[in-house]
Amino acid sequence: MIQTLWLIGIGTGSPLHVTGEGMQALRDASVILVPHKGEGKDDLAELRYRIIEASGSTARLVRFNYPERDPALPYLERVTQWHDEIARRWQSAVAEVAPEGPVALLVWGDPSLYDSTLRIAQRLHPVPDIRVIPGITAIQALTAAHAIPLNAVNGPIHITTGRQLRDQGWPEGAERLVVMLDGEAGFQTLDIPGAEIFWGAYLGMSEQIVESGPLAEATPRILQARRAARARHGWIMDTYLLVLPKAAEV
Amino acid sequence: MIQTLWLIGIGTGSPLHVTGEGMQALRDASVILVPHKGEGKDDLAELRYRIIEASGSTARLVRFNYPERDPALPYLERVTQWHDEIARRWQSAVAEVAPEGPVALLVWGDPSLYDSTLRIAQRLHPVPDIRVIPGITAIQALTAAHAIPLNAVNGPIHITTGRQLRDQGWPEGAERLVVMLDGEAGFQTLDIPGAEIFWGAYLGMSEQIVESGPLAEATPRILQARRAARARHGWIMDTYLLVLPKAAEV
Repeated sequence: MIQTLWLIGIGTGSPLHVTGEGMQALRDASVILVPHKGEGKDDLAELRYRIIEASGSTARLVRFNYPERDPALPYLERVTQWHDEIARRWQSAVAEVAPEGPVALLVWGDPSLYDSTLRIAQRLHPVPDIRVIPGITAIQALTAAHAIPLNAVNGPIHITTGRQLRDQGWPEGAERLVVMLDGEAGFQTLDIPGAEIFWGAYLGMSEQIVESGPLAEATPRILQARRAARARHGWIMDTYLLVLPKAAEV
Repeated sequence: MIQTLWLIGIGTGSPLHVTGEGMQALRDASVILVPHKGEGKDDLAELRYRIIEASGSTARLVRFNYPERDPALPYLERVTQWHDEIARRWQSAVAEVAPEGPVALLVWGDPSLYDSTLRIAQRLHPVPDIRVIPGITAIQALTAAHAIPLNAVNGPIHITTGRQLRDQGWPEGAERLVVMLDGEAGFQTLDIPGAEIFWGAYLGMSEQIVESGPLAEATPRILQARRAARARHGWIMDTYLLVLPKAAEV
């Protein structure tokens, strides 16, 4: 039984993204659940171990394997089943060690932004006391890498996913749009004269690459950098900000 | 002359929000520029000194006073003049100490989100090399305090300001809306049956207060908490997330 669950945002790949609060929580946890996602993503498991070691934590580390998503199911059903299965795996992994104190999970980025951990936690029986420790998101890592503001003065910001952009097109009224979880480089389907793109991959990590420029001119450059980086590392995580001309700096 | 400028995001008030990268940058800086904003906001200057001390930095601390904004000017002109004046004050404050290494500024939240520091830095002559160190934003502090996700599964997020909400009304297509820089509690002007609000003030600080609930029911409660807290502390910084019924969790 997991009575107390701490979700620790660890930022996007640099151990130096972790906050003082995150480091303290790693030290105060009794058990840390560490996911293993299988071949080709071992960089990420390795990073978690480096962060735990750097914190000086003496918590017991408990591994669990991520299930596969069933590609035959419709999107939301697939996600729901997958979350159910992860919750079962947390519970059975923790059952073996019967922790007396908090159980912690290291969450990529921030636990509140395009991450499933909070939803999975709601599937535990009973639902534990949950504490969220905020972390640096890919959005902040992106704007930091480019040294640019996310918003125009007093201007709004839209954040969406690659899937939404593909299904719904450009969001009504958006002047500055961040696109996350876009495995298919959806920016290449857009034709917006005057738009600029600020793109980054492996943000915060030593492998970090960034590109920017007018969308039409930068697109082939980014696609090539993406292909080359994915071939080299076996995986890629990237995100980008699109800025319409009318949202240019004031 | 400022050749190298580091903008260090320090989060929203807890010294434990600062990342390892932020702490390291404070130690590696030659000079740290510390703003003083005048009466009633000394809590914030005090916090900066506590963070610098906790980092173990031996950088030289250089104070500058924030200018007042001219209320007689139209909004954008007022902001532009104010930024020009702050850039002048940075330059004259630093001129006296002639630093050989990086000059650092501690920036509330994250330097990319509704913060002027990057724009002010562009006004320096010559424009320095700028490095941005990301920090925890009020948005993440808010969702962490409520232990809620910011987005629905695969759902979009809108972020705007109190001024935009007042002038433009509810943004077209928004299902989840974060409102920042809203000194006038603009949520009280909205009538959206079924909407929920997640509100927080002094997020991350020991004074943190949070309220949530159906918008109509929670509004008077939040207004009262706001008034009482502002009277007690002499200032308030708050932010909130509004969730429409159609954006309810899936």
